[in-house]
Amino acid sequence: MKRVGIVGASGYSGEELVRLLLSHPHAELSAVTSRQYAGQTLAQVFPKFAHHPRAKALRFSEPKAELLAKQAQIIFLALPHGVAAEFAVPLLQKGCQVIDLSADFRVKSAVVYKDFYAHDHPAPELLAEAVYGLPEVYRAEIKQASLVASPGCYPTSILLPTIPLLKAGLIEPNRIIADSLSGVSGAGRKAELDHLFVECNESVRPYGLPKHRHLSEIEQELSLAAGTQVVIQFTPHLIPVNRGILTTLYLAPRNATEDSKGLSELGEKIAACYRAAYASEPFVRLLEVKALPDTKNVVGTNVIEIAWRLDPRTGRLIVMSAEDNLVKGASGQAVQSMNLMCGYPETAGLI
Amino acid sequence: MKRVGIVGASGYSGEELVRLLLSHPHAELSAVTSRQYAGQTLAQVFPKFAHHPRAKALRFSEPKAELLAKQAQIIFLALPHGVAAEFAVPLLQKGCQVIDLSADFRVKSAVVYKDFYAHDHPAPELLAEAVYGLPEVYRAEIKQASLVASPGCYPTSILLPTIPLLKAGLIEPNRIIADSLSGVSGAGRKAELDHLFVECNESVRPYGLPKHRHLSEIEQELSLAAGTQVVIQFTPHLIPVNRGILTTLYLAPRNATEDSKGLSELGEKIAACYRAAYASEPFVRLLEVKALPDTKNVVGTNVIEIAWRLDPRTGRLIVMSAEDNLVKGASGQAVQSMNLMCGYPETAGLI
Amino acid sequence: MKRVGIVGASGYSGEELVRLLLSHPHAELSAVTSRQYAGQTLAQVFPKFAHHPRAKALRFSEPKAELLAKQAQIIFLALPHGVAAEFAVPLLQKGCQVIDLSADFRVKSAVVYKDFYAHDHPAPELLAEAVYGLPEVYRAEIKQASLVASPGCYPTSILLPTIPLLKAGLIEPNRIIADSLSGVSGAGRKAELDHLFVECNESVRPYGLPKHRHLSEIEQELSLAAGTQVVIQFTPHLIPVNRGILTTLYLAPRNATEDSKGLSELGEKIAACYRAAYASEPFVRLLEVKALPDTKNVVGTNVIEIAWRLDPRTGRLIVMSAEDNLVKGASGQAVQSMNLMCGYPETAGLI
Amino acid sequence: MKRVGIVGASGYSGEELVRLLLSHPHAELSAVTSRQYAGQTLAQVFPKFAHHPRAKALRFSEPKAELLAKQAQIIFLALPHGVAAEFAVPLLQKGCQVIDLSADFRVKSAVVYKDFYAHDHPAPELLAEAVYGLPEVYRAEIKQASLVASPGCYPTSILLPTIPLLKAGLIEPNRIIADSLSGVSGAGRKAELDHLFVECNESVRPYGLPKHRHLSEIEQELSLAAGTQVVIQFTPHLIPVNRGILTTLYLAPRNATEDSKGLSELGEKIAACYRAAYASEPFVRLLEVKALPDTKNVVGTNVIEIAWRLDPRTGRLIVMSAEDNLVKGASGQAVQSMNLMCGYPETAGLI
Repeated sequence: MKRVGIVGASGYSGEELVRLLLSHPHAELSAVTSRQYAGQTLAQVFPKFAHHPRAKALRFSEPKAELLAKQAQIIFLALPHGVAAEFAVPLLQKGCQVIDLSADFRVKSAVVYKDFYAHDHPAPELLAEAVYGLPEVYRAEIKQASLVASPGCYPTSILLPTIPLLKAGLIEPNRIIADSLSGVSGAGRKAELDHLFVECNESVRPYGLPKHRHLSEIEQELSLAAGTQVVIQFTPHLIPVNRGILTTLYLAPRNATEDSKGLSELGEKIAACYRAAYASEPFVRLLEVKALPDTKNVVGTNVIEIAWRLDPRTGRLIVMSAEDNLVKGASGQAVQSMNLMCGYPETAGLI
Repeated sequence: MKRVGIVGASGYSGEELVRLLLSHPHAELSAVTSRQYAGQTLAQVFPKFAHHPRAKALRFSEPKAELLAKQAQIIFLALPHGVAAEFAVPLLQKGCQVIDLSADFRVKSAVVYKDFYAHDHPAPELLAEAVYGLPEVYRAEIKQASLVASPGCYPTSILLPTIPLLKAGLIEPNRIIADSLSGVSGAGRKAELDHLFVECNESVRPYGLPKHRHLSEIEQELSLAAGTQVVIQFTPHLIPVNRGILTTLYLAPRNATEDSKGLSELGEKIAACYRAAYASEPFVRLLEVKALPDTKNVVGTNVIEIAWRLDPRTGRLIVMSAEDNLVKGASGQAVQSMNLMCGYPETAGLI
Repeated sequence: MKRVGIVGASGYSGEELVRLLLSHPHAELSAVTSRQYAGQTLAQVFPKFAHHPRAKALRFSEPKAELLAKQAQIIFLALPHGVAAEFAVPLLQKGCQVIDLSADFRVKSAVVYKDFYAHDHPAPELLAEAVYGLPEVYRAEIKQASLVASPGCYPTSILLPTIPLLKAGLIEPNRIIADSLSGVSGAGRKAELDHLFVECNESVRPYGLPKHRHLSEIEQELSLAAGTQVVIQFTPHLIPVNRGILTTLYLAPRNATEDSKGLSELGEKIAACYRAAYASEPFVRLLEVKALPDTKNVVGTNVIEIAWRLDPRTGRLIVMSAEDNLVKGASGQAVQSMNLMCGYPETAGLI
Repeated sequence: MKRVGIVGASGYSGEELVRLLLSHPHAELSAVTSRQYAGQTLAQVFPKFAHHPRAKALRFSEPKAELLAKQAQIIFLALPHGVAAEFAVPLLQKGCQVIDLSADFRVKSAVVYKDFYAHDHPAPELLAEAVYGLPEVYRAEIKQASLVASPGCYPTSILLPTIPLLKAGLIEPNRIIADSLSGVSGAGRKAELDHLFVECNESVRPYGLPKHRHLSEIEQELSLAAGTQVVIQFTPHLIPVNRGILTTLYLAPRNATEDSKGLSELGEKIAACYRAAYASEPFVRLLEVKALPDTKNVVGTNVIEIAWRLDPRTGRLIVMSAEDNLVKGASGQAVQSMNLMCGYPETAGLI
């Protein structure tokens, strides 16, 4: 049983961490911070948790690293980029393990970070030590880590379906197109006109193209998998659901073919590649022949669904994934990393 | 053809006024104001209107009464209460006709106004002259008015089904219960956490009870209809639709009865009362035997649907209404008043 | 550990039972039936459960009582009324404990049943033995029961807030008005035009008034609590959410008063009444001073939220409740009964 | 003034035709047919139209070509494919002008039709005479036509943004990827489990890939524009809105370039190409620099919004469009064709 704290627990990712950690068999939620709600109990701020015994006792506090380091052994940072890194430094110095849900430690290069986030990196000395918290790829490293950079929601939905194919050399690394649809919780709990109910309901729209910030970590990880510098196309869209990301990937098989025997062999290679990568992964669901991903089948869970189709008319490979942007795309995956860091069963508190 | 202006044209009611007036056969939209968007064209702020010829020419301006009085003969005020009255005074002095969509001139008593709106009335000298803009009740007065106080969305949905019954003495005036469900646009285009998509979607909740501000105008008008002081019960709820109000009224027939003959006679009286009041009203739809109101049948129109049931088990009369809160509950009704004030066909630009 | 089966597991209540029982610490889901999906695995029919170890092994079977009685000790019936009773008879004879989610055993009188359900009761001999499965009211009886009639979704949302007030003599038993708003899952997983996405989204509508079937069980239980025959007013509405019921109750305090001292004393009595009834109930959340119920705070949980306001202007008591129609209003409550019947902790598998 | 009829007026496209034609200045809606609702008035089947004078007089009839040919001069067919062609034959013989909203006359080749629709074409002799009803491309032909095949919803959203680029030789014809998101009304008013509110709300999913039927007409028209056989990639997705299609197109500029001067010149060519094609089109809205399409800005209108971005990182051209699938994607476009066929102003009844 470890004591855990959440810095920035009043946003959507923070709230989801509260939900998961309140019922985690090996974690005791011992600190939650929020500038806005300091002094109030969990039960007051989130009535939905009020039936939990700890919710009436635990109060939000001002986020202070010194105090937190005494209250908890593991700290989740659910803060905006830039701010998160500043918190991580003193917490690590005092011996805490830190799982950061912001973008601050995901990108290895401070230069790339500045290019995408438009300010200097606040703690470049920690970049080498941080581990990218994608358990299906970096399980061994996460087990040894003090500082985990939990992946972004879009990146998770793109990397998990793509990395095995790149590693196996099955697709062209520089012809990847990712078209993603995200629920509105991805925009965070911020009072903004664009995310009012009336502005989002009965609306669908692209945004943030062509150079969304998440491209920095996506391309870093794809490049590592491909062994060559990868640049991809990525278009995010906002759709009127609370939660869920659906990503459709348009990929070019390396050895394109149009005859049916070639296609059939390629299909077998792809199926084998995914089975080898994910058949025993507890949170990756490879869909069977006719099934296609649907966000409603993963919302509230730490599961990512993956399906694929080879198009005999174009020779392209279409891969689709669905995840809950707040669980596998954020807080659930962060807890999965915590389980690995602490030596708990990887699925503890997540199934 | 009259020149019309809208002060506060960037909120939801203002936007709906723009929509209606751009296609009105006898109105030329000649001024729109908005502090936030001053300098931008209609087309820039509202791409949805960009295909209209005037949308690229007409620019939002700062709201200045002197200028407006030169640009338009009729001014719609889509401003918060308190602010609206301050604009009305100079516009009326300069000879404009004013249709105010705020609460400022709805309540005849400055004392009641202060009780419900928590500040002194900004222009009590105008209260006597203002006409409550419910055309089905005050058609003659609206035709003569310089200053129309267009009713609130909830009040419209409650008053139209109730006033004829009170005037006919068919129901007990002091046992009225109104349970209302409103779409989120009723909260206005304001950046507030409570009205974010994620906070409203998959959520239903009561709010603002037991003393919602709209009670002041509702009870004033019901008292006038009943000829006695009326106090009612009113509970608004927020539901996840963009537009629409559904009100369910629980009423006590004055001469309660439980035998089937008595009920049948009472039913005939109610039917006759509604037919007399509304059979020839262009915007009141009395539903036939089995039909029940549904907001989706009125959204985008100036129509209010009304249905009723006598419950033989309890003797109560249940009356239900559905309207679009932004049209019959706000901007459409305001245009209906404009048509009356200008001598245009009452349905001009509304069907 | 007991073996449990679900008859009719492919509807929304059945699906929710699957979810709860797959993760229940003392239950082994050993049989699921569905005419439509017989032969398919849980994982095939409900991809969302596919990550659970049992989901790939457990297959839907045709519903056959004889076989079920061998496969499971406890059987949940998630079937239409009429059909459920026919299944219950042989299962009980073979020694199973039965928890019926249909209406078949809720009403004690076969005459009332026929009046509301329009056909003869299929097994009137079992009516005396069945226990109404509202644990907060019938905990002791449920512990001894072989046949539990799990309450309807609307009834739960109305009975829990009302019964303590009636038992304490605080309200007039025959002036109860219940206005309820339900998510669309309440209509079941049936291919009907009225419940298509496009027909429900951006729509709100009353239905089924004035004599909804649930009145039979509601009035039976209220009459028992009041010690007198109770008839109430009840209007259900359909709102565009997947899950959740919000009920607003308009109640008349027995000793009505308008002076503030009297109101204050009455308020204390009501608060004390609710505290006595529910302060230690694990699934009833009495909201504190300013909070109001919101379905989003209970969806996915077995909790019902209750808040109340005394209106000094009308003397009425307004009580509001929120629950998940599929959990506290159906499957969660049924599992709560199972826990009691089996001597497990009442909250097992539900928190 | 012409008399017009709608065959199959009770589906979503039919209902939208009713809405548009009831308020059309030059059309008199003289016949509506529906097997299911024969004998009922428009007002009974669609309460939302009940305030229109004709809605209480006009009754649905059984669909009989002979009678229809007497009642109307122009007939809209809003029927399933296969059935539509059978109706068109006798109507044309009797001198009616026919606008078919089904797929039956969109594809010029009966062989391709059978490949995609899995049955023989019911009236191949009419294929040569039918005009593809995309006014921005075939305006002159539509003016002369007796039989117009109104385009599908997805095709419209793909063809209008793509055809000018192909004609100008600016993009590679065989590297087109179209990723489309459609509201649920696209599935029609059919009682199907997959399109229940609960199955669609809080859900996003791809479907129908990789060989959706609409590819047949899309590729036919793109091939004509490119002057070469075109095969594209197309993935439709279902999203929880009533109306609207958002299409994101991934295109490869023919003369790819990575230097900024080359990109800038290419950008100017693209802008000029779109301006030349659409600057004076009443229903195509080319969005300005920062704006992106949003379905909420076009729903209820006959407008299609188009925006584009050149990605300097990949060299790709991203084009996005938004339309109302029931208006520009179906009924509005059909009325636009009617206006051309009859010599009315093209925007009559549509703005």
